[in-house]
Amino acid sequence: ALGIRGRFANLIFEDLSPNDVASRADIVFLALPHGVSSEFASPLLEQGKTVIDLSADFRIKDEHVYLEFYGVKHKAPELLKESVYALPELHRDEFKNRKLFACPGCYPTSILLALAPAFKSDLIDCDGIVINSLSGVSGAGKKSDLVYSFCERDSNVMPYSWPKHRHLSEIEQELVRLSGDPTTVSFTPHLLPIVRGMLSSISAKLKEGVDLGNVRDAFETSYKDEHFVSVLVDGDSPEIRHVVKTNSCQLAFALDQRTNRLQIVSVIDNLVKGASGQAVQVMNHILQLPEEEGLIC
Amino acid sequence: ALGIRGRFANLIFEDLSPNDVASRADIVFLALPHGVSSEFASPLLEQGKTVIDLSADFRIKDEHVYLEFYGVKHKAPELLKESVYALPELHRDEFKNRKLFACPGCYPTSILLALAPAFKSDLIDCDGIVINSLSGVSGAGKKSDLVYSFCERDSNVMPYSWPKHRHLSEIEQELVRLSGDPTTVSFTPHLLPIVRGMLSSISAKLKEGVDLGNVRDAFETSYKDEHFVSVLVDGDSPEIRHVVKTNSCQLAFALDQRTNRLQIVSVIDNLVKGASGQAVQVMNHILQLPEEEGLIC
Amino acid sequence: ALGIRGRFANLIFEDLSPNDVASRADIVFLALPHGVSSEFASPLLEQGKTVIDLSADFRIKDEHVYLEFYGVKHKAPELLKESVYALPELHRDEFKNRKLFACPGCYPTSILLALAPAFKSDLIDCDGIVINSLSGVSGAGKKSDLVYSFCERDSNVMPYSWPKHRHLSEIEQELVRLSGDPTTVSFTPHLLPIVRGMLSSISAKLKEGVDLGNVRDAFETSYKDEHFVSVLVDGDSPEIRHVVKTNSCQLAFALDQRTNRLQIVSVIDNLVKGASGQAVQVMNHILQLPEEEGLIC
Amino acid sequence: ALGIRGRFANLIFEDLSPNDVASRADIVFLALPHGVSSEFASPLLEQGKTVIDLSADFRIKDEHVYLEFYGVKHKAPELLKESVYALPELHRDEFKNRKLFACPGCYPTSILLALAPAFKSDLIDCDGIVINSLSGVSGAGKKSDLVYSFCERDSNVMPYSWPKHRHLSEIEQELVRLSGDPTTVSFTPHLLPIVRGMLSSISAKLKEGVDLGNVRDAFETSYKDEHFVSVLVDGDSPEIRHVVKTNSCQLAFALDQRTNRLQIVSVIDNLVKGASGQAVQVMNHILQLPEEEGLIC
Repeated sequence: ALGIRGRFANLIFEDLSPNDVASRADIVFLALPHGVSSEFASPLLEQGKTVIDLSADFRIKDEHVYLEFYGVKHKAPELLKESVYALPELHRDEFKNRKLFACPGCYPTSILLALAPAFKSDLIDCDGIVINSLSGVSGAGKKSDLVYSFCERDSNVMPYSWPKHRHLSEIEQELVRLSGDPTTVSFTPHLLPIVRGMLSSISAKLKEGVDLGNVRDAFETSYKDEHFVSVLVDGDSPEIRHVVKTNSCQLAFALDQRTNRLQIVSVIDNLVKGASGQAVQVMNHILQLPEEEGLIC
Repeated sequence: ALGIRGRFANLIFEDLSPNDVASRADIVFLALPHGVSSEFASPLLEQGKTVIDLSADFRIKDEHVYLEFYGVKHKAPELLKESVYALPELHRDEFKNRKLFACPGCYPTSILLALAPAFKSDLIDCDGIVINSLSGVSGAGKKSDLVYSFCERDSNVMPYSWPKHRHLSEIEQELVRLSGDPTTVSFTPHLLPIVRGMLSSISAKLKEGVDLGNVRDAFETSYKDEHFVSVLVDGDSPEIRHVVKTNSCQLAFALDQRTNRLQIVSVIDNLVKGASGQAVQVMNHILQLPEEEGLIC
Repeated sequence: ALGIRGRFANLIFEDLSPNDVASRADIVFLALPHGVSSEFASPLLEQGKTVIDLSADFRIKDEHVYLEFYGVKHKAPELLKESVYALPELHRDEFKNRKLFACPGCYPTSILLALAPAFKSDLIDCDGIVINSLSGVSGAGKKSDLVYSFCERDSNVMPYSWPKHRHLSEIEQELVRLSGDPTTVSFTPHLLPIVRGMLSSISAKLKEGVDLGNVRDAFETSYKDEHFVSVLVDGDSPEIRHVVKTNSCQLAFALDQRTNRLQIVSVIDNLVKGASGQAVQVMNHILQLPEEEGLIC
Repeated sequence: ALGIRGRFANLIFEDLSPNDVASRADIVFLALPHGVSSEFASPLLEQGKTVIDLSADFRIKDEHVYLEFYGVKHKAPELLKESVYALPELHRDEFKNRKLFACPGCYPTSILLALAPAFKSDLIDCDGIVINSLSGVSGAGKKSDLVYSFCERDSNVMPYSWPKHRHLSEIEQELVRLSGDPTTVSFTPHLLPIVRGMLSSISAKLKEGVDLGNVRDAFETSYKDEHFVSVLVDGDSPEIRHVVKTNSCQLAFALDQRTNRLQIVSVIDNLVKGASGQAVQVMNHILQLPEEEGLIC
């Protein structure tokens, strides 16, 4: 082959208005900055299109929370009640007849998949949950910013956006839905010297009378039929390299009997399962295709 | 220069018995595996030598805890009451007239320096402390083990030895000394794709009535005169690269008002401040030299 | 999913003799150490099977050269004349009616694809060719050897096996076939701090009267219809990351007019196009499938 | 310590004119972009100051070559004959009574130290020299450029500025001085996924009648008394990690008898021996201090 660089060389980029898009597609993926997605979604939805959005704009149900965490007024608050928080493993039952899907990104995905089983089975306290997440540099997007330069990031780790990262808004919104109780969490994200991948390490106190068997049951019930979520055997540790370039989430947990706290660790590829991979899952669902179509496990 | 590799090329390695050593030195550094240090220390101490030990053998005061965490019976339990836990920033007042110094390694150093100010000022709960530590691969020592091969570790992170890592034994022993109360902690170590460096990210609940000013006072009082411990200004984040190849520990903290939990982050170079650097600090102290002599800050 | 790690979790490993294999397959891939492949190939070929070998055993046509470079006597020298050097882009015309295919590994592949066009069009001197190759650590195989440990390789580069690396034997054998003249080359391999990928940087003197247009013609003629070999446009530089996890080879060249030397740079993923990828190309060819079936470009 | 970051925290940066500088120092280091150094040097020299320059401005003796390679007219061509090319291991005999020192950067240093012994002893052909250099990313300076972002450089290698990199101008100027003959070389620089360090891999044809013993004699004679240049024993390979954070250059060579070409490999830390380290050597020399004062070997 001459002058080309692999299978992506023939992609054509076009500058399209929402109307241009609407005339050419039934399902539209919006991979736009927050604040811009909400402008594109309205005209598309008005023309009956299905919108799968990867921004934060339709994830947060309360426009005041959106303002608090994103610092700008929401541009289409009337759409918030129509959107569904589109993490398929937790919410695919709500997808029917919906037209606006808000796919969560990497932090919420890695955290919500890890905490959902214990919350749904009422095994852990809502109070005192501590989350440390470690992210690859690609999580920041493609930027010519000194902070993301090779010489600043190689052989280096640091926390950032602590103690109140933007994504806390949707993490807590969804945890409240899962637990049914007021839930705030401590969340500290860290930047790793790797391009792709995310690990979340979560600690929560077990409720009284709960044992490790209950925890295992909850995880197995939640995920035994899930294609993209694997629960590792006791003693096995999730590793980022095992999920890079896949749509998989791997989970493991351990009970520290001395503190009666449960430690849950999850790994995903932030560039796949964090947003784009589940956007494809959502599309497959809409089209009644197998959810794993076109995705690597 | 011919056939040599820099300034370390002239080092001479000798196979020495404790008696050989005793005849040639007044202060002896033992950098030996646990179980071996305790065999070397006795004859050296009997001959009046000062022993600065870098193993775990004399850090744990209770031989039953030693047995529980290291799986072997202690070989010189009678020496345990004579040893001092040699983290100079916390314990240099106890160094006088001592002959046996047990220098803590990287995990306890990065954690104890981070928690000591809040514990000494009674600002945080002993319950519900959650520690996530991230370590460079050199923490495992120089080993031809597949787990530490480049292809397994590059671009990868995983937790290991969780939920009950060996170093919990001394971390909790020392936290109890600091807090005066029963204290167990959740501790999850992770392996980073870097050679040197360690970051500990710690979450603890503030006691009622405590505010961020009290916390800052406690950190400043503890460390304002310390050469090797820096408390960063609010909003600054510790980075591993800023301490690599130095004996420094950098600390920062933030209060998450939504959960009333304090997040403390510390960074050190596990190959310096973790054991060998403070061994030199101890020697300087014994010789009445400035504690920072020969060390990089 | 429970207790599994992605799509490779269901692979079954069996301990099979050549006869076991022969009873269950028509085409057999041998991924065995040199010296072992030659023992397995004979019984398989006797039973009419097709053998696609990834070792060095059938690449070198002269058993004395094999002895010189591998230090052991060849175990099946009678098979050497039956085997074909299976680099599809150069030799697929010779595949017809063959049963024994010797797939070259990463160094020869990255070098031969780079030099073939100029040699076939008689554009460069056979004398004074200088090759520097840079390899990811996975090129050494999965080994618990200190040399390949993270702490020895990270942030480090060194030459190795210089000036006479084993693969020179087959590189020169094949260059002689391409040039028709005696050809020896200088070859220095280096170890990079990356897991996957290889870059070869090659310098050769242009013959008199040859210009850059002749060179471009030669490359375009050779590769314009090749699926897995791309010739970049002038001024573009091959990058390892553009071919990692693909079966592609990307090539670029530049003429240094001051020295009248041609510099050719090629990149491949040593774990794909280096041996295993072209083994699949060969199988596809045998089965009359499109050569790119099952491979990523 | 409070609010500081190690031993560099107290540095004070000032905006100074050449006259300000002249009033406060006798020896001035200029670490300025090319084109700016030449503006600063004149007023300093006029006031009798010694200037140690780290830019390209005074390295190239011929202003036409400067224009060809840097694309701008030289601003102080009258100073070119006063400056000395300040690679101490090769030119310290010329330092006496000089006031303007042009310190070479990383590429010329790693290449000239490697080639000087063979050229001075007339052992290699001036024709057909091939140089491949591999550089850490810090060689590009501190820049928020996408090309130097972590996600573009990690796990990646590529050639750049080939086939005519700017530094060829001074490399060839100095090689001509060493060889006494017209000398052009092929030079291909590559960008490595490491922060610091440089490796140059050089191939040159031995002259007739020259053997490996002559080569070893030449290297030993040149460098046996040099503090910062080490000639490794036969069979040993230079590694970047052995010189990082030092002012050392390590060299090794091997004769490929099949091609009668000599392969020379050198490693340095591009942030030390490349410019700043030898600037300190030069200052030590001027001040009649031991040349290694303040530098790590």
